[in-house]
Amino acid sequence: MNFLSDNAVGVAPEIMGALAEANRGPSMPYGADDWTRRVERKMAEIFERDVRVFPVATGTAANALSLACLAPPYGAIYAHEEAHVMVDECGAPEMFTGGAKLRPLPGAHGKLTAEILERALTRDHSGDVHQAIPAAVSVTQTTEAGTVYKPAELQAIAEVARRHKVRLHMDGARFANAMAFLGVPARQATWEAGIDVLSFGGSKGGCMAAEAVVFFDPALADSFGHRRMRAGHLVSKMRFISAQLDAYLADGLWLKLARHANAMAQRLAQGLSAVLPRFPGARLLHPVEANEVFVQLPAGIIADLRQAGFAFYDWPGEDGPAIRLVTAFNTESGHVELLLKTVRDLAGRAA
Amino acid sequence: MNFLSDNAVGVAPEIMGALAEANRGPSMPYGADDWTRRVERKMAEIFERDVRVFPVATGTAANALSLACLAPPYGAIYAHEEAHVMVDECGAPEMFTGGAKLRPLPGAHGKLTAEILERALTRDHSGDVHQAIPAAVSVTQTTEAGTVYKPAELQAIAEVARRHKVRLHMDGARFANAMAFLGVPARQATWEAGIDVLSFGGSKGGCMAAEAVVFFDPALADSFGHRRMRAGHLVSKMRFISAQLDAYLADGLWLKLARHANAMAQRLAQGLSAVLPRFPGARLLHPVEANEVFVQLPAGIIADLRQAGFAFYDWPGEDGPAIRLVTAFNTESGHVELLLKTVRDLAGRAA
Amino acid sequence: MNFLSDNAVGVAPEIMGALAEANRGPSMPYGADDWTRRVERKMAEIFERDVRVFPVATGTAANALSLACLAPPYGAIYAHEEAHVMVDECGAPEMFTGGAKLRPLPGAHGKLTAEILERALTRDHSGDVHQAIPAAVSVTQTTEAGTVYKPAELQAIAEVARRHKVRLHMDGARFANAMAFLGVPARQATWEAGIDVLSFGGSKGGCMAAEAVVFFDPALADSFGHRRMRAGHLVSKMRFISAQLDAYLADGLWLKLARHANAMAQRLAQGLSAVLPRFPGARLLHPVEANEVFVQLPAGIIADLRQAGFAFYDWPGEDGPAIRLVTAFNTESGHVELLLKTVRDLAGRAA
Amino acid sequence: MNFLSDNAVGVAPEIMGALAEANRGPSMPYGADDWTRRVERKMAEIFERDVRVFPVATGTAANALSLACLAPPYGAIYAHEEAHVMVDECGAPEMFTGGAKLRPLPGAHGKLTAEILERALTRDHSGDVHQAIPAAVSVTQTTEAGTVYKPAELQAIAEVARRHKVRLHMDGARFANAMAFLGVPARQATWEAGIDVLSFGGSKGGCMAAEAVVFFDPALADSFGHRRMRAGHLVSKMRFISAQLDAYLADGLWLKLARHANAMAQRLAQGLSAVLPRFPGARLLHPVEANEVFVQLPAGIIADLRQAGFAFYDWPGEDGPAIRLVTAFNTESGHVELLLKTVRDLAGRAA
Repeated sequence: MNFLSDNAVGVAPEIMGALAEANRGPSMPYGADDWTRRVERKMAEIFERDVRVFPVATGTAANALSLACLAPPYGAIYAHEEAHVMVDECGAPEMFTGGAKLRPLPGAHGKLTAEILERALTRDHSGDVHQAIPAAVSVTQTTEAGTVYKPAELQAIAEVARRHKVRLHMDGARFANAMAFLGVPARQATWEAGIDVLSFGGSKGGCMAAEAVVFFDPALADSFGHRRMRAGHLVSKMRFISAQLDAYLADGLWLKLARHANAMAQRLAQGLSAVLPRFPGARLLHPVEANEVFVQLPAGIIADLRQAGFAFYDWPGEDGPAIRLVTAFNTESGHVELLLKTVRDLAGRAA
Repeated sequence: MNFLSDNAVGVAPEIMGALAEANRGPSMPYGADDWTRRVERKMAEIFERDVRVFPVATGTAANALSLACLAPPYGAIYAHEEAHVMVDECGAPEMFTGGAKLRPLPGAHGKLTAEILERALTRDHSGDVHQAIPAAVSVTQTTEAGTVYKPAELQAIAEVARRHKVRLHMDGARFANAMAFLGVPARQATWEAGIDVLSFGGSKGGCMAAEAVVFFDPALADSFGHRRMRAGHLVSKMRFISAQLDAYLADGLWLKLARHANAMAQRLAQGLSAVLPRFPGARLLHPVEANEVFVQLPAGIIADLRQAGFAFYDWPGEDGPAIRLVTAFNTESGHVELLLKTVRDLAGRAA
Repeated sequence: MNFLSDNAVGVAPEIMGALAEANRGPSMPYGADDWTRRVERKMAEIFERDVRVFPVATGTAANALSLACLAPPYGAIYAHEEAHVMVDECGAPEMFTGGAKLRPLPGAHGKLTAEILERALTRDHSGDVHQAIPAAVSVTQTTEAGTVYKPAELQAIAEVARRHKVRLHMDGARFANAMAFLGVPARQATWEAGIDVLSFGGSKGGCMAAEAVVFFDPALADSFGHRRMRAGHLVSKMRFISAQLDAYLADGLWLKLARHANAMAQRLAQGLSAVLPRFPGARLLHPVEANEVFVQLPAGIIADLRQAGFAFYDWPGEDGPAIRLVTAFNTESGHVELLLKTVRDLAGRAA
Repeated sequence: MNFLSDNAVGVAPEIMGALAEANRGPSMPYGADDWTRRVERKMAEIFERDVRVFPVATGTAANALSLACLAPPYGAIYAHEEAHVMVDECGAPEMFTGGAKLRPLPGAHGKLTAEILERALTRDHSGDVHQAIPAAVSVTQTTEAGTVYKPAELQAIAEVARRHKVRLHMDGARFANAMAFLGVPARQATWEAGIDVLSFGGSKGGCMAAEAVVFFDPALADSFGHRRMRAGHLVSKMRFISAQLDAYLADGLWLKLARHANAMAQRLAQGLSAVLPRFPGARLLHPVEANEVFVQLPAGIIADLRQAGFAFYDWPGEDGPAIRLVTAFNTESGHVELLLKTVRDLAGRAA
């Protein structure tokens, strides 16, 4: 039973259907097709404003290309010290920006705060050529800790960024999960809150390999087309990327799938909260707000869970071993209940 | 009727079927899956030797990542002046290598020759730090002119490369068409002829978005994994790229599809050859050996063909306007015959 | 007797004196000093307009930093196929621009022409993301063939560049020699002719290690300071670079030194012209307009000259071996006469 | 009176003399000269082993070129969070390595510790392509806090580095000051302690613009020549860089000059220690071991010192304003005594 990651699952049937549908007759390559145009229109509806949208196949491409539009090679990019752009992209932002400086910032539960950002930007805005010019901030929504920025938190960060003339990017690999949690209009948690560019994730939400870079400030997008091409991210039969997004956005599918994943994580969190006090040191490490549950557990219990057939990754805990459980658009509630029952049984045996 | 490009067509049904098939249950992400392993095994069978294989989604990624494994930032890369890596990738090789120098070479019908390469390498192997060190040669098979290198031509180039300690890459976006034309074992036109790394194309042959980088010298591949990741080209749900290749390679499908495309181009070439003498200046610009036909035609005839519903790109001619006709795995012979009939009718009317 | 290069000679005494003079007391580092300010003022006088000036220690740095201000990573830079930026900087323009595409153009006697440039820019301005966007042209004044662009030739090139929205850089490593030859006001051969940025050479003219990047369009210079710093080209004790330039520009020293070098080359050219007809195949390969003389000579004569104590580089000839003779600010006329006499003697002996 | 920086002072007379001496007759350019060869020989004597030595004009160039030889683009480089390579080179290491990831580490008084490094390397050596491969550590000797690593501290760091297969670079912009403080043979604080490459500083020690990259492991230097050229750091009249180093190394001049600077700083530290207790919150922020003194002082006192004619930079303090006083090879003891007297007077007036 798979709780490894939301990229270890397959593709939603609606999206497989859309791919089959898109495979009828020829079509102009490189994005000059109806599907790609439709995705831009749907994004404009979802965000209630004009946007420029560029489909790509991976989240790392979406992030690194976005940041390359925001930061010059002599610029600095700020993000949480555990952000994907900081530690899980093998230096993609450095590569795509031509060597911009990535500056990691601390923050509880995977979140930047306006205060920490303010301190860093004040320190680094020296006006001296020895320092890379602060150019962009990247926030991750849902964060790497499975938590979600509230619109007011984003606004506070954006206010600092704006004052320091720094642009704001959102890594939304799990944007759908965050929006499903927040339950507000998409504009409130993005451009109204000050986001300039969004990596709108599809792959983790149920697509096969599809993300969309959404520019709320169209002027920032001018070089995107050429940058995407030279990075090898202009898929020739683009309609098959766009068709995924087209189906994902249709009739709120993206939110529906995310709500299911979130609900499965909530059920895990509730069930675990009831039983964790029975293990020494065991606890949830972060608030569960989207589709990830971080649990510190005794090493023996972790081994027993694996033995019982559950798949998940180890994760750094606070003062002991921990694991990450990720739910997805198609996580079966039976698997969730079985995991909870197994933990309860282990607690009973341990007692 | 579409003769625009082999990337303006859809996906072969066998490959769509394989995608649906791959969408059953969870699977490890990032290439630790059965499909990816199977692709490597099948490539080993096709090339009759151990290989290391890395699937990616685009040909530009395959080329630029390959070249980055062959050439240091202070190296020089040689290719035909009309090669895709030279003029159609918006500087991807420069980006991925960290700024290697691309050195264009001339050559009739899109082909490098051993003589031209020898002259260039002798000139540039100065031993002086002012010059970028010759590091790699890239040949395109099928070339941009729709011609095919014979094994002996490749051997002659490879012999020059080896003598100058330069590695040899093959851009095989249309490798299948070349192999269908040559009718020799794949090894004869690749590693036995001296190729170190091959970009094995799938997208133009009938896949959705799938190419494979095939290393014949495994030592050259050591950095590929990290380079692919930081370029954003490690697709998380990799099985869906690999499943395309897996089906494409199964039971010689790749060759079967290419044979059809080639046959359609041959039919075009034969039919056109018969009628072109009736137009002033009209002629085939290159031998037709794969799935592309380059035809110089009077401007009025080109316009008439478009008017009649045929789609194709303009192309630089020799002493007049020209067009490129591309056939694909699913080009209908009815469309080909209709095009030929239309040209004959236009010739009749012109007379 | 040294005819190797104008960088194989020492430093003019006026410049050594200025260095000693500058070494009195402390001074603000990184260019916030009087010498640096004075250089900018003197350049403004020489060019009869406001300029922004940045001293650096090498010509390659001056060129690559200039081009990085003109061309984005997805841009293309055009220059003569034998230009220093094209073949003698080991890829510095590629490195500093973050991977821009260098596109070599042919041209007799080391010169670009408006016609050749027009053809290339028309071809490459496709508007298609597959092609790097034409961004900059670099002309070399004095060219690598020792010839000099006339103001009208520069204007014609600049007119093409402007029409294609491409910026114009001048590599002026031997700018002084060109100006000494032309005898026109500096503005006529630079910004009035359409040059946007000039690498104003000092090292080859008699400085120790000093070049100045001169921006005629100040807006282009905005990122220069940070780019110079991150390239390691902001010399901390900058006054010692600027003091060289300050002395070099004072009272027309730069032109005076160049006039001497040019006169020595003219004498060589005249003397050789008289005797070359007596050797089979021997001739001057390019008009001698500055301080370089390219001579095709029988191999035996070249060997004899070396044997007689003259130092120079071999150079590619047209249909036989050739050599390059370079004169400098301090070339002794006695050495020139001795070389000519030696050649005459060899001619006599050969007869 | 200047306590701004050791790059705000001039050039030692011995070095000016050597420059004049080097300016006799022609010499082969680009480092094929006697001075450059002599510098390599002298370094071999100083370090008591074979070395490969490359002169450059700036410390940032020395550092960034060194690191580019140690870390691939997909590598990670570790250094103290306040190190010059981390925050004062505007991203030069990112630029020269082609986008390697710089990972800042904390540490008291500007020093890395083996423990902190061990934790970071263990965390990052995941074997997963998502993470940049740990490739190099850079230590700064003298540190940015004016402190000096003892050989045993370096050994402990090197032991961690070696175990994790990570190379060790030393930024020795103030290497002379450190060696003057340590009083041990140079080998003990470099290659015997595990340093692979050293940026041996000259400019801050009394040269005009000269640093030497010293490779203790010659194999690491193979690409240095080409990397230096393409970075524009191969000075054509190289002898004038090397002549500075030649004189600087002759007869222990480098150590003699550093000893003077250190002695002046010690005198400052002693004098200040006696009087600081009389100001609230005032104290030395770091042990004074080389030529820098960091003093937290009341804002009014800082203003008074400036008013009295002393020049220095503000610096971040711990819980109040602070300043940095830097002494140099030619700091006059009269200036030091005057500064101390001024502080004492201010203390008396404050009482």
